[in-house]
Amino acid sequence: MIVLKLGGSAITDKSRPETLDGPALERASDAIAAALDGDGVENGLVIVHGGGSFGHHHASEHGLTRTSGSRDVTAAMDVHRAMKTLNAFVLERLLERDVPAVPVHPFSTAHREEGGDLVLPTGQVATIVAEGFVPVLHGDVVSHAGEGVTIVSGDELVAGLARDLEADAVGLCSTVPGVLDDDDAVIGYISSYDDVEPVLGASDATDVTGGMAAKVRALLDLESPATIFGLDDLEAFLAGDQPGTTIDGASAVD
Amino acid sequence: MIVLKLGGSAITDKSRPETLDGPALERASDAIAAALDGDGVENGLVIVHGGGSFGHHHASEHGLTRTSGSRDVTAAMDVHRAMKTLNAFVLERLLERDVPAVPVHPFSTAHREEGGDLVLPTGQVATIVAEGFVPVLHGDVVSHAGEGVTIVSGDELVAGLARDLEADAVGLCSTVPGVLDDDDAVIGYISSYDDVEPVLGASDATDVTGGMAAKVRALLDLESPATIFGLDDLEAFLAGDQPGTTIDGASAVD
Repeated sequence: MIVLKLGGSAITDKSRPETLDGPALERASDAIAAALDGDGVENGLVIVHGGGSFGHHHASEHGLTRTSGSRDVTAAMDVHRAMKTLNAFVLERLLERDVPAVPVHPFSTAHREEGGDLVLPTGQVATIVAEGFVPVLHGDVVSHAGEGVTIVSGDELVAGLARDLEADAVGLCSTVPGVLDDDDAVIGYISSYDDVEPVLGASDATDVTGGMAAKVRALLDLESPATIFGLDDLEAFLAGDQPGTTIDGASAVD
Repeated sequence: MIVLKLGGSAITDKSRPETLDGPALERASDAIAAALDGDGVENGLVIVHGGGSFGHHHASEHGLTRTSGSRDVTAAMDVHRAMKTLNAFVLERLLERDVPAVPVHPFSTAHREEGGDLVLPTGQVATIVAEGFVPVLHGDVVSHAGEGVTIVSGDELVAGLARDLEADAVGLCSTVPGVLDDDDAVIGYISSYDDVEPVLGASDATDVTGGMAAKVRALLDLESPATIFGLDDLEAFLAGDQPGTTIDGASAVD
């Protein structure tokens, strides 16, 4: 099974609130439809998309982060509605191309315990995949014991799904072709954060859901190998190639 | 905690596809808003609504029942979209009255195992309630191992929620004022199916989600007392009264 994240920045125009990057989403959808016609994803595909200009705008307006919440129903519904709108756009493009995509809304299933640990049921996702559909999740609000609702990022969902569903591979389709070194060349392989600390520095959140350093750290903790690549390489990734940067913390530990 | 079911027939016009019974939904929403201003629901409220003319129409068109499924994504999405439309109408009326209602879509969280047993996570519902919101679930499709997607009825959700969340009371707001005897008088109390078999006969499904006999049988199996009443009695029920028919199988067993 493959878990594919479509970065929010890759499919929306982050400079304007609630604005899709239509051509980018069309290209991503074309690549996914082509992959389903081939045999690169014959064990199933789970898609997660980020918030981009749909989620982040409302989250920051209402002061919501992964740890700081709100009990204001307007805050919860503003983020949730905006993310469902983006999810509906993604589903529409996929369904047009005969990808049997169905929505899975995290606010309806996940929650955080006191202290912030995410509880994410995955039995429904596994069953949806086993029955031949392609579940499409997204960054969202989730109820959080003691905090009201907080944000769950697409990256957190990817990590939880990859772990529970024992994903064969994780792909992050981003606005960049991979993790870049100081000369803007793609670093092909990372097995330890030490490899990239001189380039990325310490973890440094650039938005509510974390920057590249945080992404790399989280991906190093996965059992599954993860690949960060740009839109041009999505079809190659889904065909089984490893374009961009492959991050494999588990094999380094072995 | 109170689990309240708004029957699909009570809030939609079942004679016409995808048609709301607007005045009935307004009255139900008024009663719920009034109850939240009082102290009848101070331990929290979970709302579940049925499908009425939104869900059943598409379910029967695609041949979907609780046991017979489909792997056609159009079948899944037709039912799911129609139910989300009805859910959005319900939420809108509640939010207008300052009820902090948020949606919980069963297709996003529940699934059926082979054999049909429903797996319904409830940690998110408990957290949503504990944080002061009112979750609103609905009849829906769910993924079903070996069947594609099948229907989950509002009544099944009510039973699962009442059990897991140890509901203090379960209310079913229906088109009738209670379970009626042969003279159309409301039967006040039922503690065993034997009490009503002469009136209701054997279980006899009148739609994909079961008729009154099936409802009574299911409610007798709950640990929580359940009350069936009409729209006129919703406010009284939420204030702690027991209008209509109270069904209490657990106390009879004690």
